[in-house]
This record gives sequence, structure tokens and C-alpha cells, in this order.
Amino acid sequence: MRNSLRTIQKQQTVRNKLRTLRVICAKTKGRLNSGGGIINQGLKHTDMHISNHCKIELPGWVTDFVENWHEPLSTTSQRMKLAIALSEENIRQQTGGPFAAVVVNEKTSELVSVGINLVTTAGLSIAHAEMVALSLAQAAIGEWNLSHAGHLQLVTSCEPCAMCFGAVPWSGVKSLICGARKKDAEAAGFDEGDKPDHWVRSLQRRGIVVQCGVLKSEAAAVLASYGDNGGAIYNANHGQENN
Amino acid sequence: MRNSLRTIQKQQTVRNKLRTLRVICAKTKGRLNSGGGIINQGLKHTDMHISNHCKIELPGWVTDFVENWHEPLSTTSQRMKLAIALSEENIRQQTGGPFAAVVVNEKTSELVSVGINLVTTAGLSIAHAEMVALSLAQAAIGEWNLSHAGHLQLVTSCEPCAMCFGAVPWSGVKSLICGARKKDAEAAGFDEGDKPDHWVRSLQRRGIVVQCGVLKSEAAAVLASYGDNGGAIYNANHGQENN
Repeated sequence: MRNSLRTIQKQQTVRNKLRTLRVICAKTKGRLNSGGGIINQGLKHTDMHISNHCKIELPGWVTDFVENWHEPLSTTSQRMKLAIALSEENIRQQTGGPFAAVVVNEKTSELVSVGINLVTTAGLSIAHAEMVALSLAQAAIGEWNLSHAGHLQLVTSCEPCAMCFGAVPWSGVKSLICGARKKDAEAAGFDEGDKPDHWVRSLQRRGIVVQCGVLKSEAAAVLASYGDNGGAIYNANHGQENN
Repeated sequence: MRNSLRTIQKQQTVRNKLRTLRVICAKTKGRLNSGGGIINQGLKHTDMHISNHCKIELPGWVTDFVENWHEPLSTTSQRMKLAIALSEENIRQQTGGPFAAVVVNEKTSELVSVGINLVTTAGLSIAHAEMVALSLAQAAIGEWNLSHAGHLQLVTSCEPCAMCFGAVPWSGVKSLICGARKKDAEAAGFDEGDKPDHWVRSLQRRGIVVQCGVLKSEAAAVLASYGDNGGAIYNANHGQENN
């Protein structure tokens, strides 16, 4: 399987290169982006090209890690323990920021998906742990509406940022369990964005049960350790914000 | 290329099936998800399996549509015109909801990326037009921080929902241009989520210039037409919310 995966990746690289060439060719003909005079000159190109796809993919260690996780997932604390362990391993493996999340079937305790922060390695600012977990849960069930797969629960090692908060109601999960608090992430150096003051109530009004502070000390300790060790902070406007 | 793409897709399907089998095998051995008693029985399986990747991909018509767009992109209105045209075409092609966005280099007017709402077709609730446009811009420049590629501008046919609002600062865009208003999307039947009351100020504090209401009548007309024609509304808790 590993070799055939490499073959697929090579083919995809070739395909991407051909697409780039095609777009550059289109640009020289003035068919793409006729504004701004750049294309009208018919000479100047930039390194940028239109992409038609992007991918979110868990690194290889995650599957092994989950397969070797022998502890039960019957309670919210047990589920949070897995999320926190994944966030720690994500730091150790240097595959992203100190955040992780899991989607679990509330009733059967089955693990539906796993998400870790992949912003820096996937090169996508939306690839927060919650977004990855929700998207991979949807990939697993084959549709965007998780409410069609029973009562699914998103368990995240840290309270969601403004983006992930907004994403929760669109996903169809029935409950949200959070570990560390916003202030813990901020103390480690992260901008968490601005949620509405009554963000928990906002989710509750949409039928989503929210529980915060589950294993909060353990979850916050991972963030503190990341901050203390100078882990990368990847807020686009971080410097600016602190000026 | 089309044939080799099919070959890749077939190989990926085989790969996914093998992965599913592998996970099911792991489950029967009690190595995955030992909670809830399901696995302990060693017999009962569900149709769900852990996915390790998902993909956001523009449908084929988008590239042709953009290549045949001969109008300039020098002003915010011209850029909005393209976003609105894409939102209309997305309805016509039945490839998603009535929303579209583009990322443009503010200074050179070069088109960096295009996004359309792909929630229903990609099977991902995060695949809103703005998220797709930002992610494909990042795929195009090869990194998550768009501020490294100059002053990039996100132009969206409708004011961002709570999730997309939260995503904007993480992306590195320098400005946000909106067409239709939240109330226009809500009138068409969409839940737009709860943004902070002072969401524009929240972005401005992070160095992002915001302009709302560009070609708002034209943008709102697309939403109204979608609503009037009974277009699919895909809020997970929509029914519940209106009860």
C-alpha cells in the first residue's frame, strides 16, 4: 500500500504541475484575470496560480496512536483524556499546534473521528483540531450532516476559537465538551478571536449541549508547556495585534 | 489526464476500502475504541470507520467559468461582480449553495483563488465559499499565511457567517469586502450563526479593512431567487431552530 500511495502522490504531483502550466498558458493568452494590467502586458507572471483543490490529511502516526489506545471512551473524561493525549503527541511529533479533538458517538461510545491541529503542516489556516475532527467525521459517514449518524459529540482539548465555535452548529453534532479555557490558549500566545459573549447559550439555543472545563488542568498544562518551550504561534496578525 | 485521474480515483477507492477493512480488523481485536461495550463483544460493527483525510475540490465548470471571465478586477465592484456571477452559476450547476467568494491581490488585481459553497456536494459543513476561497488561496501560495503573498483581499457575495467571520483573521488576508447582508441570507432561509455585535471592529482591531454592502442589491437578488425557488437549506439544526 505504501508504494502504491507513493505512485498516486507522484501522479498527483505531475497532474498539479500540468494544471499550473495550463493556467500559466491561459494567463499568457489573457483569458484569466484580465484586471490590473499584469496579464494585459502578456509577459509578467507571478508564482501564484489558481488551485482547484486542497486536502486535509492526518499524519501517519495518528492511526497507530489511536489503534494503540486501549482505554475506554465511555465518559466525557475518558474521551477528553484521548484528546489531550493526541494534543501532546502532536507537539512531540511536530505535526502542528497543541490542540486535538475527537468525535464520539454519545450513546455507543464509538470513536467516529480524530482531529489534530494541522495549520502549519497542511498549510491551511482553517485546519484547527475541531475543524479536522468534524470534517473527518463527515468523511467517515459520507455526508455533511452528522445528526444523521446519531448523537455525536465533539470533545476538544481547548474551548473553540471564534471560527470553530461558528463551525459547531453547521456540523450536526449534538454536544460539545471542552477542556482548557480560552485564557489558557491566550496565555500560551494564541489569539482565539472574538466569540459572542453568550457563546454557550448561542449553541444551546441550537440544541447543542455544552460542557466546559473537563480535565481542564491536564489540558491547560499541555498549552502551558507548549508556550514555555517556545512552540510556534501561527496567528497571521499576531505581531500586529500585540503592537 | 482525465483517464489518469480516473486511475488515481480507482486506486484511492481501493486504498480506502483496504483502510476500512484494516480498521474493522483492528476493532475486532479490541484495539480501537474499547469503550461502550461494542468492541468488547467482538461482533458488532457499524458502517462508520475512521477517515484520515478529506478533500475540498472545485467542480470542473469553475475553471472554465473563470477562464472565460474577461472583465477587469481592478475595483471592489468588479471583483464582487465575479463573486456574484459565481454564486449564480453555482446554483445553476447544482453544485452547492448560493454563495461565492474570490481572493484577489489588492495591488495587482490578480485573481489568487475562487471559492463557491460546496457543503452539499463535498459533504463537508465547513465548505462555505469563504473557507474554500481562503484554503485554495493558501494551496496556491503553498502556505497558510496569506500575508506573505502581499495584500490579499477576500471578496464574498454575502457577509460571512459566524464560522467564516472567525476564519478571516487566521488567514492573513488584509481586507474583507461583502455583498449581501446577513438578513438577506436569513430571509432566504439560512441560519448565519451568532457573530459578536461589533464583528467589524473585531476584524479592524486585527488590521483587516472591512467594506460591506458592495453591489448589495445584486448579491441579495441571487439569495432571494434561491429562496423563492425552494433551494436546499443545509443548516443541521434548521428545523429544530424554527420550532
